[in-house]
Amino acid sequence: MKLANIFDSIPDSFEQELSQLLAQNENLRIERIVSKGHTSPASGWYDQEENEWLIVLKGAAILAFEHADDVRLKCGDYLNIPAHTRHRVTWTEPDSETVWLAIHY
Amino acid sequence: MKLANIFDSIPDSFEQELSQLLAQNENLRIERIVSKGHTSPASGWYDQEENEWLIVLKGAAILAFEHADDVRLKCGDYLNIPAHTRHRVTWTEPDSETVWLAIHY
Repeated sequence: MKLANIFDSIPDSFEQELSQLLAQNENLRIERIVSKGHTSPASGWYDQEENEWLIVLKGAAILAFEHADDVRLKCGDYLNIPAHTRHRVTWTEPDSETVWLAIHY
Repeated sequence: MKLANIFDSIPDSFEQELSQLLAQNENLRIERIVSKGHTSPASGWYDQEENEWLIVLKGAAILAFEHADDVRLKCGDYLNIPAHTRHRVTWTEPDSETVWLAIHY
Protein backbone atom coordinates (compact mmCIF):
# COMPACT_ATOMS: atom_id res chain seq x y z
CA MET A 1 0.00 0.00 0.00
CA LYS A 2 1.48 3.29 -1.08
CA LEU A 3 1.34 5.87 1.69
CA ALA A 4 1.88 9.60 1.21
CA ASN A 5 1.35 12.68 3.33
CA ILE A 6 -0.79 15.62 2.28
CA PHE A 7 1.62 18.11 3.88
CA ASP A 8 4.75 16.77 2.17
CA SER A 9 6.43 17.82 -1.06
CA ILE A 10 5.50 21.49 -0.92
CA PRO A 11 8.22 23.64 -2.49
CA ASP A 12 9.52 26.64 -0.55
CA SER A 13 8.16 29.03 -3.12
CA PHE A 14 5.82 28.66 -6.07
CA GLU A 15 4.50 31.30 -8.41
CA GLN A 16 1.14 29.76 -9.10
CA GLU A 17 -1.24 27.82 -6.95
CA LEU A 18 -0.18 24.15 -6.90
CA SER A 19 -2.61 21.47 -7.94
CA GLN A 20 -1.88 17.76 -7.65
CA LEU A 21 -4.14 14.89 -8.60
CA LEU A 22 -4.21 12.26 -5.83
CA ALA A 23 -6.80 9.82 -7.17
CA GLN A 24 -9.38 9.70 -9.91
CA ASN A 25 -11.77 7.53 -11.80
CA GLU A 26 -14.59 8.30 -14.24
CA ASN A 27 -16.75 9.68 -11.41
CA LEU A 28 -14.41 11.75 -9.31
CA ARG A 29 -11.10 13.55 -8.95
CA ILE A 30 -9.37 13.97 -5.61
CA GLU A 31 -6.96 16.86 -5.71
CA ARG A 32 -4.54 18.61 -3.37
CA ILE A 33 -4.32 22.36 -3.81
CA VAL A 34 -1.66 24.49 -2.14
CA SER A 35 -2.01 28.27 -2.05
CA LYS A 36 0.22 30.93 -0.52
CA GLY A 37 -1.49 34.23 -0.95
CA HIS A 38 -2.88 33.04 -4.29
CA THR A 39 -6.41 33.97 -5.26
CA SER A 40 -8.64 33.40 -8.25
CA PRO A 41 -8.13 35.67 -11.27
CA ALA A 42 -9.38 39.16 -10.44
CA SER A 43 -12.35 38.99 -12.77
CA GLY A 44 -14.85 36.22 -13.38
CA TRP A 45 -16.05 33.23 -11.41
CA TYR A 46 -15.39 29.54 -11.26
CA ASP A 47 -18.45 27.93 -12.81
CA GLN A 48 -17.90 24.17 -12.65
CA GLU A 49 -19.72 21.31 -14.30
CA GLU A 50 -19.15 19.09 -11.26
CA ASN A 51 -19.91 19.33 -7.58
CA GLU A 52 -16.91 20.12 -5.40
CA TRP A 53 -16.50 19.09 -1.79
CA LEU A 54 -13.56 20.83 -0.19
CA ILE A 55 -11.80 21.04 3.12
CA VAL A 56 -8.98 23.27 4.33
CA LEU A 57 -6.32 21.16 6.08
CA LYS A 58 -3.85 23.91 6.85
CA GLY A 59 -3.94 27.69 6.66
CA ALA A 60 -6.98 29.82 5.92
CA ALA A 61 -8.90 31.18 2.95
CA ILE A 62 -11.90 33.24 1.97
CA LEU A 63 -14.32 32.13 -0.73
CA ALA A 64 -16.74 34.52 -2.37
CA PHE A 65 -19.97 33.43 -4.04
CA GLU A 66 -22.02 35.21 -6.64
CA HIS A 67 -25.26 34.62 -4.77
CA ALA A 68 -24.20 34.06 -1.15
CA ASP A 69 -22.10 35.65 1.56
CA ASP A 70 -18.35 35.22 1.72
CA VAL A 71 -17.13 32.21 3.67
CA ARG A 72 -13.91 32.20 5.68
CA LEU A 73 -12.35 28.76 6.07
CA LYS A 74 -9.80 27.74 8.66
CA CYS A 75 -8.20 24.35 9.34
CA GLY A 76 -10.78 21.58 9.29
CA ASP A 77 -13.57 23.64 7.74
CA TYR A 78 -15.35 21.97 4.87
CA LEU A 79 -18.18 22.78 2.54
CA ASN A 80 -19.91 21.45 -0.53
CA ILE A 81 -20.15 23.62 -3.64
CA PRO A 82 -22.84 22.32 -5.99
CA ALA A 83 -22.11 22.38 -9.71
CA HIS A 84 -22.56 25.80 -11.31
CA THR A 85 -22.42 27.64 -8.01
CA ARG A 86 -20.26 30.53 -9.08
CA HIS A 87 -17.44 31.18 -6.66
CA ARG A 88 -13.92 32.50 -6.36
CA VAL A 89 -11.06 32.50 -3.89
CA THR A 90 -10.56 36.09 -2.73
CA TRP A 91 -7.87 35.54 -0.09
CA THR A 92 -5.48 32.91 1.22
CA GLU A 93 -2.86 33.30 3.94
CA PRO A 94 0.02 35.24 2.38
CA ASP A 95 2.90 34.06 4.58
CA SER A 96 2.23 30.34 4.97
CA GLU A 97 0.74 27.57 2.88
CA THR A 98 -2.95 26.87 2.72
CA VAL A 99 -3.52 23.20 1.92
CA TRP A 100 -6.90 22.21 0.47
CA LEU A 101 -8.33 18.84 -0.35
CA ALA A 102 -10.87 19.09 -3.16
CA ILE A 103 -13.15 16.30 -4.35
CA HIS A 104 -14.73 16.95 -7.73
CA TYR A 105 -17.65 14.61 -8.32
CA MET B 1 -23.01 28.02 1.92
CA LYS B 2 -23.13 25.71 4.90
CA LEU B 3 -19.78 25.48 6.62
CA ALA B 4 -18.84 22.82 9.17
CA ASN B 5 -15.61 21.68 10.79
CA ILE B 6 -14.32 18.12 10.64
CA PHE B 7 -13.04 18.31 14.23
CA ASP B 8 -16.31 19.56 15.76
CA SER B 9 -19.17 17.64 17.32
CA ILE B 10 -17.14 14.79 18.73
CA PRO B 11 -18.66 13.49 21.96
CA ASP B 12 -16.41 13.08 25.00
CA SER B 13 -16.92 9.34 24.99
CA PHE B 14 -18.44 6.90 22.52
CA GLU B 15 -18.66 3.14 22.71
CA GLN B 16 -18.41 2.42 19.03
CA GLU B 17 -16.49 4.06 16.25
CA LEU B 18 -18.42 7.09 14.97
CA SER B 19 -19.33 7.32 11.32
CA GLN B 20 -20.94 10.39 9.78
CA LEU B 21 -21.94 10.90 6.17
CA LEU B 22 -20.78 14.32 4.94
CA ALA B 23 -21.77 14.17 1.28
CA GLN B 24 -22.92 11.59 -1.22
CA ASN B 25 -24.33 11.00 -4.65
CA GLU B 26 -24.76 7.87 -6.77
CA ASN B 27 -20.99 7.66 -7.34
CA LEU B 28 -19.43 8.42 -3.98
CA ARG B 29 -19.81 8.75 -0.24
CA ILE B 30 -17.68 11.12 1.81
CA GLU B 31 -17.60 10.03 5.42
CA ARG B 32 -16.02 11.19 8.67
CA ILE B 33 -14.91 8.40 10.98
CA VAL B 34 -13.83 8.99 14.57
CA SER B 35 -12.02 6.26 16.51
CA LYS B 36 -10.64 6.23 20.04
CA GLY B 37 -8.89 2.94 20.55
CA HIS B 38 -11.48 1.25 18.32
CA THR B 39 -10.36 -1.42 15.89
CA SER B 40 -12.05 -3.70 13.39
CA PRO B 41 -13.75 -6.81 14.76
CA ALA B 42 -11.11 -9.30 15.89
CA SER B 43 -11.79 -11.78 13.10
CA GLY B 44 -12.37 -11.22 9.41
CA TRP B 45 -11.51 -8.49 6.94
CA TYR B 46 -13.21 -5.54 5.34
CA ASP B 47 -13.82 -6.59 1.76
CA GLN B 48 -15.48 -3.65 0.02
CA GLU B 49 -17.21 -3.37 -3.33
CA GLU B 50 -15.93 0.18 -3.75
CA ASN B 51 -12.54 1.84 -3.79
CA GLU B 52 -11.76 3.80 -0.65
CA TRP B 53 -9.44 6.80 -0.45
CA LEU B 54 -8.70 7.74 3.12
CA ILE B 55 -6.70 10.25 5.08
CA VAL B 56 -6.01 10.57 8.80
CA LEU B 57 -6.61 14.16 9.91
CA LYS B 58 -5.91 13.73 13.60
CA GLY B 59 -4.44 10.94 15.71
CA ALA B 60 -2.87 7.76 14.41
CA ALA B 61 -3.86 4.27 13.30
CA ILE B 62 -2.53 1.00 11.97
CA LEU B 63 -4.11 -0.79 9.02
CA ALA B 64 -3.43 -4.43 8.28
CA PHE B 65 -3.84 -5.98 4.84
CA GLU B 66 -4.31 -9.59 3.89
CA HIS B 67 -1.67 -9.44 1.18
CA ALA B 68 0.55 -6.49 2.17
CA ASP B 69 2.49 -5.15 5.12
CA ASP B 70 0.84 -3.19 7.89
CA VAL B 71 0.63 0.54 7.38
CA ARG B 72 0.88 3.06 10.20
CA LEU B 73 -0.90 6.34 9.50
CA LYS B 74 -0.33 9.64 11.26
CA CYS B 75 -1.87 13.06 10.67
CA GLY B 76 -1.97 13.89 6.97
CA ASP B 77 -1.16 10.39 5.74
CA TYR B 78 -3.40 9.14 2.97
CA LEU B 79 -3.72 6.03 0.88
CA ASN B 80 -5.99 4.46 -1.67
CA ILE B 81 -7.49 1.05 -0.98
CA PRO B 82 -8.78 -0.55 -4.19
CA ALA B 83 -12.07 -2.45 -4.04
CA HIS B 84 -11.74 -5.95 -2.61
CA THR B 85 -8.37 -5.25 -1.00
CA ARG B 86 -8.97 -7.00 2.28
CA HIS B 87 -7.94 -4.87 5.24
CA ARG B 88 -8.67 -4.15 8.86
CA VAL B 89 -7.89 -1.53 11.49
CA THR B 90 -5.69 -3.16 14.11
CA TRP B 91 -4.94 -0.12 16.28
CA THR B 92 -6.00 3.47 16.84
CA GLU B 93 -4.77 5.87 19.51
CA PRO B 94 -6.44 4.82 22.75
CA ASP B 95 -6.41 8.12 24.64
CA SER B 96 -7.34 10.66 22.00
CA GLU B 97 -9.53 10.75 18.92
CA THR B 98 -8.37 9.62 15.53
CA VAL B 99 -10.30 11.48 12.82
CA TRP B 100 -10.43 9.93 9.37
CA LEU B 101 -11.88 11.21 6.14
CA ALA B 102 -12.95 8.34 3.88
CA ILE B 103 -14.10 8.65 0.29
CA HIS B 104 -15.86 5.57 -1.04
CA TYR B 105 -16.07 5.65 -4.82
